[in-house]
Amino acid sequence: MTDAGTDAGLLAPGWAGTPAEAGLTDEAWLQAMLDVEAALARGQAELGLVPAWAAAAITGAARAERLDLVDLARRARLAANPVVALVPAFTAVVAAEHRPAAEFVHRGATSQDVLDSATMVLAGRALGQVAADLDRVAAALARHAGTHRDTVVAARTLAQHAVPTTFGLRAAGWLLPVVDALARVRDLAGRLPVQLGGAAGTLAAYREYAALDRPGCDADAVTLALVGAVADQLGLAVSVLPWHTARTPIADLGSVLALVTGVLGKFAVDVRTLSRTEIGELTEPAAPGRGASSAMPQKRNPVLATLVVSAAQQVPAHALVLTQCLLAEDERPAGAWHAEWQPLREALRLTAGAAGCAAELAEGLVVRPERMAATLGLTGAELVTERVGAVLAPTIGKAAAKELLAGVVAEGVPLPEALAGAGLAPESLVDLLDPARYTGLAGPLVDRALTEYVEFRAGARAENHPIDLG
Amino acid sequence: MTDAGTDAGLLAPGWAGTPAEAGLTDEAWLQAMLDVEAALARGQAELGLVPAWAAAAITGAARAERLDLVDLARRARLAANPVVALVPAFTAVVAAEHRPAAEFVHRGATSQDVLDSATMVLAGRALGQVAADLDRVAAALARHAGTHRDTVVAARTLAQHAVPTTFGLRAAGWLLPVVDALARVRDLAGRLPVQLGGAAGTLAAYREYAALDRPGCDADAVTLALVGAVADQLGLAVSVLPWHTARTPIADLGSVLALVTGVLGKFAVDVRTLSRTEIGELTEPAAPGRGASSAMPQKRNPVLATLVVSAAQQVPAHALVLTQCLLAEDERPAGAWHAEWQPLREALRLTAGAAGCAAELAEGLVVRPERMAATLGLTGAELVTERVGAVLAPTIGKAAAKELLAGVVAEGVPLPEALAGAGLAPESLVDLLDPARYTGLAGPLVDRALTEYVEFRAGARAENHPIDLG
Amino acid sequence: MTDAGTDAGLLAPGWAGTPAEAGLTDEAWLQAMLDVEAALARGQAELGLVPAWAAAAITGAARAERLDLVDLARRARLAANPVVALVPAFTAVVAAEHRPAAEFVHRGATSQDVLDSATMVLAGRALGQVAADLDRVAAALARHAGTHRDTVVAARTLAQHAVPTTFGLRAAGWLLPVVDALARVRDLAGRLPVQLGGAAGTLAAYREYAALDRPGCDADAVTLALVGAVADQLGLAVSVLPWHTARTPIADLGSVLALVTGVLGKFAVDVRTLSRTEIGELTEPAAPGRGASSAMPQKRNPVLATLVVSAAQQVPAHALVLTQCLLAEDERPAGAWHAEWQPLREALRLTAGAAGCAAELAEGLVVRPERMAATLGLTGAELVTERVGAVLAPTIGKAAAKELLAGVVAEGVPLPEALAGAGLAPESLVDLLDPARYTGLAGPLVDRALTEYVEFRAGARAENHPIDLG
Amino acid sequence: MTDAGTDAGLLAPGWAGTPAEAGLTDEAWLQAMLDVEAALARGQAELGLVPAWAAAAITGAARAERLDLVDLARRARLAANPVVALVPAFTAVVAAEHRPAAEFVHRGATSQDVLDSATMVLAGRALGQVAADLDRVAAALARHAGTHRDTVVAARTLAQHAVPTTFGLRAAGWLLPVVDALARVRDLAGRLPVQLGGAAGTLAAYREYAALDRPGCDADAVTLALVGAVADQLGLAVSVLPWHTARTPIADLGSVLALVTGVLGKFAVDVRTLSRTEIGELTEPAAPGRGASSAMPQKRNPVLATLVVSAAQQVPAHALVLTQCLLAEDERPAGAWHAEWQPLREALRLTAGAAGCAAELAEGLVVRPERMAATLGLTGAELVTERVGAVLAPTIGKAAAKELLAGVVAEGVPLPEALAGAGLAPESLVDLLDPARYTGLAGPLVDRALTEYVEFRAGARAENHPIDLG
Repeated sequence: MTDAGTDAGLLAPGWAGTPAEAGLTDEAWLQAMLDVEAALARGQAELGLVPAWAAAAITGAARAERLDLVDLARRARLAANPVVALVPAFTAVVAAEHRPAAEFVHRGATSQDVLDSATMVLAGRALGQVAADLDRVAAALARHAGTHRDTVVAARTLAQHAVPTTFGLRAAGWLLPVVDALARVRDLAGRLPVQLGGAAGTLAAYREYAALDRPGCDADAVTLALVGAVADQLGLAVSVLPWHTARTPIADLGSVLALVTGVLGKFAVDVRTLSRTEIGELTEPAAPGRGASSAMPQKRNPVLATLVVSAAQQVPAHALVLTQCLLAEDERPAGAWHAEWQPLREALRLTAGAAGCAAELAEGLVVRPERMAATLGLTGAELVTERVGAVLAPTIGKAAAKELLAGVVAEGVPLPEALAGAGLAPESLVDLLDPARYTGLAGPLVDRALTEYVEFRAGARAENHPIDLG
Repeated sequence: MTDAGTDAGLLAPGWAGTPAEAGLTDEAWLQAMLDVEAALARGQAELGLVPAWAAAAITGAARAERLDLVDLARRARLAANPVVALVPAFTAVVAAEHRPAAEFVHRGATSQDVLDSATMVLAGRALGQVAADLDRVAAALARHAGTHRDTVVAARTLAQHAVPTTFGLRAAGWLLPVVDALARVRDLAGRLPVQLGGAAGTLAAYREYAALDRPGCDADAVTLALVGAVADQLGLAVSVLPWHTARTPIADLGSVLALVTGVLGKFAVDVRTLSRTEIGELTEPAAPGRGASSAMPQKRNPVLATLVVSAAQQVPAHALVLTQCLLAEDERPAGAWHAEWQPLREALRLTAGAAGCAAELAEGLVVRPERMAATLGLTGAELVTERVGAVLAPTIGKAAAKELLAGVVAEGVPLPEALAGAGLAPESLVDLLDPARYTGLAGPLVDRALTEYVEFRAGARAENHPIDLG
Repeated sequence: MTDAGTDAGLLAPGWAGTPAEAGLTDEAWLQAMLDVEAALARGQAELGLVPAWAAAAITGAARAERLDLVDLARRARLAANPVVALVPAFTAVVAAEHRPAAEFVHRGATSQDVLDSATMVLAGRALGQVAADLDRVAAALARHAGTHRDTVVAARTLAQHAVPTTFGLRAAGWLLPVVDALARVRDLAGRLPVQLGGAAGTLAAYREYAALDRPGCDADAVTLALVGAVADQLGLAVSVLPWHTARTPIADLGSVLALVTGVLGKFAVDVRTLSRTEIGELTEPAAPGRGASSAMPQKRNPVLATLVVSAAQQVPAHALVLTQCLLAEDERPAGAWHAEWQPLREALRLTAGAAGCAAELAEGLVVRPERMAATLGLTGAELVTERVGAVLAPTIGKAAAKELLAGVVAEGVPLPEALAGAGLAPESLVDLLDPARYTGLAGPLVDRALTEYVEFRAGARAENHPIDLG
Repeated sequence: MTDAGTDAGLLAPGWAGTPAEAGLTDEAWLQAMLDVEAALARGQAELGLVPAWAAAAITGAARAERLDLVDLARRARLAANPVVALVPAFTAVVAAEHRPAAEFVHRGATSQDVLDSATMVLAGRALGQVAADLDRVAAALARHAGTHRDTVVAARTLAQHAVPTTFGLRAAGWLLPVVDALARVRDLAGRLPVQLGGAAGTLAAYREYAALDRPGCDADAVTLALVGAVADQLGLAVSVLPWHTARTPIADLGSVLALVTGVLGKFAVDVRTLSRTEIGELTEPAAPGRGASSAMPQKRNPVLATLVVSAAQQVPAHALVLTQCLLAEDERPAGAWHAEWQPLREALRLTAGAAGCAAELAEGLVVRPERMAATLGLTGAELVTERVGAVLAPTIGKAAAKELLAGVVAEGVPLPEALAGAGLAPESLVDLLDPARYTGLAGPLVDRALTEYVEFRAGARAENHPIDLG
């Protein structure tokens, strides 16, 4: 049998080499499936359904390296999932070590119980990585917002200079959606459910074994207790019903991951624009070799922003597939379940990778106030025509004021000159036309955002999620 | 100017003629934008920034029928949004009634403030309709789950009969995701934020007018108060910052709507399958003319399920667009905002329409236990081979039991005969091979689900959302 | 019954008021369905299956304004499509004019025959509009490419100045994909098939009527001839089989429309960037009121580019739905067909609107060579470090040359000074460091592209599609 | 450095272990990139720009196993693409073997030239595999269509029995879209273009080296010839312009792959339905272990159909991303290019895997005429009510006939009895009510489809693509 290739992320520089890569390999999935088999045996042992020595033997044997991953992957084609081939292969491993324990492998379970639970375990870990990096993004953005609360910049709307704002408010605008996304990631990570339903979600075989293994027990109660015991073993939550075809947890993962890459993507597209050669208000953090081009020695490309944006272009499509898989027919579907696996893995990897890139970007972002002042100067007083209109309105009417100003700009008349003609005292113009005097509530809004963030941190810290404001 | 067409939903039978249709027309959007202009004026009046008479005049004039909708829609091309043309047109209407009031129209606002806030108002109403219909779906499904707690049916996995379950558990499996979706719809409806940020999210012009109109006031505080006042006028929430490019509220709408059509779609695909001619376990509710074919007089098509499924095939794509629009560059984007409007409208209409269809379907669903018994009988004892395997395992081993049973089925040997050969007492076989004795925890799981639902209702009722269990 | 709303495109400024709007309204669809009913009757008359007077009466009555569109749309809910209600309503209209003719309405047809054929007719017309506007885009871009064949500009890669190129090559790069898309639009428009299959694609009822109406005829041959006759009446093509569930024509429409908005979107995102305040190399065509802001009198927003981009963000999602509807189960599906209608309409409208906007944008695009020279000057000699590297390589080695140049740039040493140190004769540097001398094959590539375009025009003209190169 | 995981397709049983897996690994991409570097050197040697010994040395060194794949993948993060790190690493490999040759590596090229060309080479090979398997699918479906030209089955519309058809026509309906897709796959495979543009698509560095290496040559002509030479080396086509941001070839790959999985998915959803326990008209081909369940020994799941459907649920989402990447800004984009790689690879693998599964499914499909007769018998005469309506219409009118028949069905009156009441002679009813006498043009349509297929084969064979009709 030919060897399989390496999953090194050659075409996915955003996640290659990250913890998310290592945590979401085929090997990781195989190990997680074995962990589920072991957790099931231990849960059954806890309830007296399986001998303790059998659970111990199963747990001891549950190591991915004892199985032939490539062979399992290829035999998955026969059953359309990898668990059907895994069960006898793993049973053989157990039997080789402790023959009697082999009878207790996969007792009462169905393929989907094992794969779904394994997926939740891995997804939970990946969400933990995402959360840790969103924490870093938020802390760094909060720092930028505070530092540049009053650094005046040109706001741009429809790609044109509009009115003044501050870089602090821009950073605060990046910050809050990230904090919100972080809260959701944590919330979702805490709700991922174990899957334990048996062949069709009735728990019938688990119950049958309970009745056979503990004669006289309340088989219903013991079976329900088993669900909780396995969930505890795996650090997962318990859902009211088995969720073989109630795929909200999967759709939720898609939605939250797409939200994360979306809010990071917003930050990244702005960095990409603001680091354009002609603008240069921001520069990506320097690192040896970063941003290099294979052809042009002078280039310093915004590579972190690029990787984040490229993730944000992919993850919504994966999320869409996951959402569509809600239409899982019957008690277990022929296709809709199978279509979830790769998109979910890739969405997790891309998101975790993007969060890592965004953290590095936010923490090392080079802010260049001198360039901000320079670009602001390109339009200067034009940035405050809205204000001038408001000031002129009581005198000449709102519509007339707007028309006058539009004309002035169109004809290139210097604004002070035109306004002098409109009866405004020249001495008032210095203040009136100063962009720095027309940032509205930028400062107070930054304060509001930082207060929100600090309160979030306080709440988060209470739940042992320390955030460093830097 | 040519007349525009009619938005009758000829190609969207799922929402044609529903309240969602009426609530999401161009006329509705125009009226909502005018409502926002009026709410702004009243909010400003409340804070002493605009004379009360002006706010009253603006409110009085804010009626869509006084404006030329078609002309506005066409002039929107010049500015890429309909508000730029609306402002002078509406100002003229106000002026015609009360000339001095015209000066106070759209004071400090930007296009996006008006359109986003209007969209939130309409989305909130549509979510209310969705919630009301999900309520009905949930109540009806809970009734089916209770009534058929113990009605044995064949569970199907990968399109094949698998093991027994009950129709009650199937209905409970439809129910809980619907209840969960309903909770999210209500939650989101209560969080939709007003948009008030001015040209670039600094609130600068609102503040400028505040300072001009109430000299000596704390302009920052008054401006922040204005945001709250307008939100109150419109029944919307207040966000920490203006959200011109922090589009989480829009992405959330997409996600929640896709979740709703997804969980309804799961119910609908099952109805579609179970009402197949060969299965016939369910039939859509009868109504004069429903399900008719233009060609075949005998047909009774599952049209409600069809409409729900077709919505579930469309809404995730709209949600994807909304998620991708999170990448809104600068202080206001050139494209990403504009791409949201039609997908959001259509997603709202489709979802509200699907919820209405699903309510009608769930409430009138014809359950046919005699057909359930008949299809169960097609496989009979084969449905319990899993159980037989568990029973045989202690004697002959798990793997040997599975192999034996697979062989028996493949060779078509009657199971009782084969099992007698395996040493099972014939008298035990009657019970062992009875599908009705192998429904596992189906009954208790139904009870759990209904308890969950009742608790949800209790909580919901406390918040004045009465649900009728029927 | 409440009136329905107006489909004025208030939320779709890209297509509001365009021919595509008018051509794709509910009224247009109703009329097209009636046109199909009339074409069927005339086709049947041609073959002696229906009296000529009946076909004439049916054709005469086939006017949308005689039917109650809103009522039909709402009754579509009962059958999940509008044709089932249309048939008796239209039959009544015919009967009112000419009672005996009523017996010949919809003879042998199924709903899907009528709706699919109507859709193809409308899609064909919309493609015609798209093609006409793509023609205009191509002609204008070819003109820009020719005019600015040698206008040197900074090429930008990963948002940074890279090496020199010419504006002509940039325009040629926009041009060719547009020409290619145009060719595909025309090709597809000529292949749109009529749908005539009867209840399940066997043409059984058409054949039955043929046998009844022309006793003794070769009913098979006459029925096949009928398909051709109806296709001719409608200007559509004939497919080998009915395509009720072979939806390649629909998926193709999605793919081609998404390609069109994609290649126009590429042009538009570049215009959006190049018209940024800091760059200003391009400006959208001026028109009274165009690009105005509701708040800022000085603004001239790139609104045409915005509308094109926003279309390009939506159409791929519609195309995705159409592609997924290829999974149309059975002989006619319950959901997959129904999910096509709105996405296809919106994709057609958005694409036609985008093509119109792009034509206006390309034709009126203001090219500003002085700004191109100014931005080029920002990086100057850095743009040719790649070249300098090539020149230095033979002397000091490729890697060393790259390292030297990267260091020079990083340390801000003026390039001439650094190069003098590397042994290059100062007099050679003037030429070596001139961006205008390092545009590679930009000119010849423009020539190749224009030759390709001219050849395309020649071929197109031969098919009576004149293109004006301007 | 931690080892990377294995890309065994554990979560993608549709492609695990297939040639497409092996052909699209990270190793395959690395090798293909090296093949491009070698082809470039040989192309340059051919034109006298690089010494033949250097091209030979570069070619000899271009073996993936000499490079550290994992290290390259991880260093790709610094430049957002793997080529920037590959160039010095490969240069070192060359230098170790033949120091002077190292100077000639990657001469004039940019990252995108290498990666895009490599991608086209691999995509072309994958398309070849897809085409070979579509050939098999088509041949097998043609065989079924011919064999069962006249096997009467119930046509199903909206999940209900409708009118009779034949299994042959159903198979022909699967066949033609597959043949059409196959034609497109072959066409596209023949048009995949080499990428050679240099840093910004001007070919400037290639030209610079040409001028330096062959002083006095016509550098423009030599550079253009180089593009052709490299294309020939790689078996790729030449585009008019470099296509760094003219991504139609990529979007085309997405569209065609989605079409392929869509038309195969149509076949698969029908197999899934028709192999349902209650229908059983088709069964998947048997193979040891295929379709097994981990829990239920009696199960024979439609796993091939499942895998095809699950691919068809994923590929359109990948295609959507590829289409959206048409909006590639500037001369080379920061994100839109990078977002293509993984979706394209996965779409290729999924499609090739699905084609293989579909070939196996089509070739081994078990057709069960006895079950077809049985399900047909469930509705019997009801299947011909459309026909009866046509026969009654001349007597009692079309509408009255339809109403009568709908009533008869609704009330459960046996049709012969009811029709006798309507004046039809009992002796005519045997024929009239026989489903086998109402298959319309099913037979002739099968003949048309097979003729089309045979003609396609003839054309294909002429181009050396032999197809075996089996």
